[in-house]
Amino acid sequence: MSAPDDELLEQRIARLIAPQVRALSAYAVADAAGLIKLDAMENPYPWPAELKDEWLERLRGVDVNRYPDPRAAELKERLRGVMAVPASADILLGNGSDELIQLLIVAVGGPGSVVLAPDPSFAMYALVARVTGRRFVSVPLDEANFGLRLGETLEAIREQKPALTFIAYPNNPTGNLFDTGQVEAILDASPGLVVVDEAYAPFAQASFLAQLMGRPNLVVLRTVSKLGLAGLRLGVLAAAPEWARELEKLRLPYNINALTQVSAELALSHYALFQEQTRRIVADRDDLYARLAAIDGIQVWPSKANFLLIRTPPGTGSATVAALRERGVLVKDLHGASSLLRDCVRVTVGRPEENAAFLQALEEIIAAGASE
Amino acid sequence: MSAPDDELLEQRIARLIAPQVRALSAYAVADAAGLIKLDAMENPYPWPAELKDEWLERLRGVDVNRYPDPRAAELKERLRGVMAVPASADILLGNGSDELIQLLIVAVGGPGSVVLAPDPSFAMYALVARVTGRRFVSVPLDEANFGLRLGETLEAIREQKPALTFIAYPNNPTGNLFDTGQVEAILDASPGLVVVDEAYAPFAQASFLAQLMGRPNLVVLRTVSKLGLAGLRLGVLAAAPEWARELEKLRLPYNINALTQVSAELALSHYALFQEQTRRIVADRDDLYARLAAIDGIQVWPSKANFLLIRTPPGTGSATVAALRERGVLVKDLHGASSLLRDCVRVTVGRPEENAAFLQALEEIIAAGASE
Repeated sequence: MSAPDDELLEQRIARLIAPQVRALSAYAVADAAGLIKLDAMENPYPWPAELKDEWLERLRGVDVNRYPDPRAAELKERLRGVMAVPASADILLGNGSDELIQLLIVAVGGPGSVVLAPDPSFAMYALVARVTGRRFVSVPLDEANFGLRLGETLEAIREQKPALTFIAYPNNPTGNLFDTGQVEAILDASPGLVVVDEAYAPFAQASFLAQLMGRPNLVVLRTVSKLGLAGLRLGVLAAAPEWARELEKLRLPYNINALTQVSAELALSHYALFQEQTRRIVADRDDLYARLAAIDGIQVWPSKANFLLIRTPPGTGSATVAALRERGVLVKDLHGASSLLRDCVRVTVGRPEENAAFLQALEEIIAAGASE
Repeated sequence: MSAPDDELLEQRIARLIAPQVRALSAYAVADAAGLIKLDAMENPYPWPAELKDEWLERLRGVDVNRYPDPRAAELKERLRGVMAVPASADILLGNGSDELIQLLIVAVGGPGSVVLAPDPSFAMYALVARVTGRRFVSVPLDEANFGLRLGETLEAIREQKPALTFIAYPNNPTGNLFDTGQVEAILDASPGLVVVDEAYAPFAQASFLAQLMGRPNLVVLRTVSKLGLAGLRLGVLAAAPEWARELEKLRLPYNINALTQVSAELALSHYALFQEQTRRIVADRDDLYARLAAIDGIQVWPSKANFLLIRTPPGTGSATVAALRERGVLVKDLHGASSLLRDCVRVTVGRPEENAAFLQALEEIIAAGASE
């Protein structure tokens, strides 16, 4: 056995791991223990006891010693029903839509090809594109309302010829729903595949699923995370069968574990419960929006998702997030994530008492001056 | 909206999906309903009722509406304990070791770099290497006993300079454990990373984990699938902290779902149960080996895993698999998977009555002539 040799180890890593990976920091997730958790777009409602009973009875029948069904046929049928996926489209499942984003980036285009998305948008598009050696190109959104800047976007598509374009609809972290006609113009102009990521669709009542048939370069992503099943990790990709057939070859065959398959199928057989929670969250979002809009010094944008983007007084964004945390409320600091997000904070809509606690803490911090 | 246009769709796919992906068939998994399932190296023993009770009580406390813990700290500590991972090494978790193989291939080297493995070995190495645009190079094993051909392997390493070399230890689908000194010679000679994949370690009582400290280019893979938790999808990568830090950046942060974390942690807190099952499977494997060796016309190789590789009379391999299936027994047809595997069949060690049913069916088929 050769002796430990730290220099050699570091040299090997430098030679074998791409510079863009070495330059990254590992993804940081905040420790939420004991805090009101309004940072991750989770549904704030645990399952009722009766649903838990039925769920555990169903899990009792799972043979944990056997591999999961690689087709997940039953679960797919259930998803097709509740999400209204057209019969002409095929479905692919991922270990969260994160995995589907990764699969798409690895499958489409190739080394050095371009992945395009608006800025700001979901951070995973740029992150995965970069670590897999793609060229990531972003087009800034409108600074005032975070709408698409269509002219610049179409110009970037013409010049950069992206193999993949990601459009989050509604957009994260801004919460707005892009103009449908503008997204259609992007689809018309794109030589590559356009992925409309509808993670927040339950709160927006808008979708491109019905357009799958007529468009040869459209793929739609969904997830059950925001609906209330974040712990299960289940993302859904809907596409024309011709696309689905190619993408399926890159899916790891056992990527949806046995417990997730059974749990999601059962939960979605009680879809009305999650629809009711969604309606409640939408109402509370609009209420929270109105209350935030009434606070002096806070700017808030309209949202079609289960979160709100706010801007605190100049220079106070990160300090406000830290002060909220001291008061027991966890929100997402976006200052620095994009030049358009200075002093911006993203707050997930929680239960009414959680939203009230957040509002009270925020008002106290604003009143005291966020620098304290 | 543009009209459906099949030709355009196919043209787009041809332009945007790499030729090596289009050339692939989708991964096929046999339908096992109602069959004795000896095709997938599963532990054949379901959980005892008391363990299920304790498990379901534990799951009741999981908030399915919240994202899983991205660190999975508790589960990692448990895995470290039961697998005897050295304190100096770090652990990375995957959605099955499939995902860790994919992560390693994407992380190490780059487009066009070489991934090397013996032939035959686990099919996922070549599959993932090819779809991600790596160059896959294989070195044939010894035809008689499936040992490493060290000279040829070292020559290939010198010539091809693989960024990644995979050594399954024990090897799948051949079941043998490569000579430790030969694997060490490969480690010494490799300019890239060498992944020793110990998926079948519970049945072999052999490991490179203790060598992690002294070797700057060694990574060890483990899984809980063969131990009895295939339905959970949980793979483990152990490496020097310097390697783990870089690889961690490519891990999707929520890749281990909440139910798997709790379930695996609980199951492994009853590790003695799985050790006892492992001992039983090893004894039954050796018994099955002796019975197969006694059948005229069947060649069987010694195994350190939970399966056995057999060869049927010339030209009868695939027909034997089909005939076994007609008699209710599912095994893996390996004919065509490698030039070294003509007429080869892989059978997982099941419960004693399953092994007996397999043996009886095989004897009938051999006696009748496999062509019927």
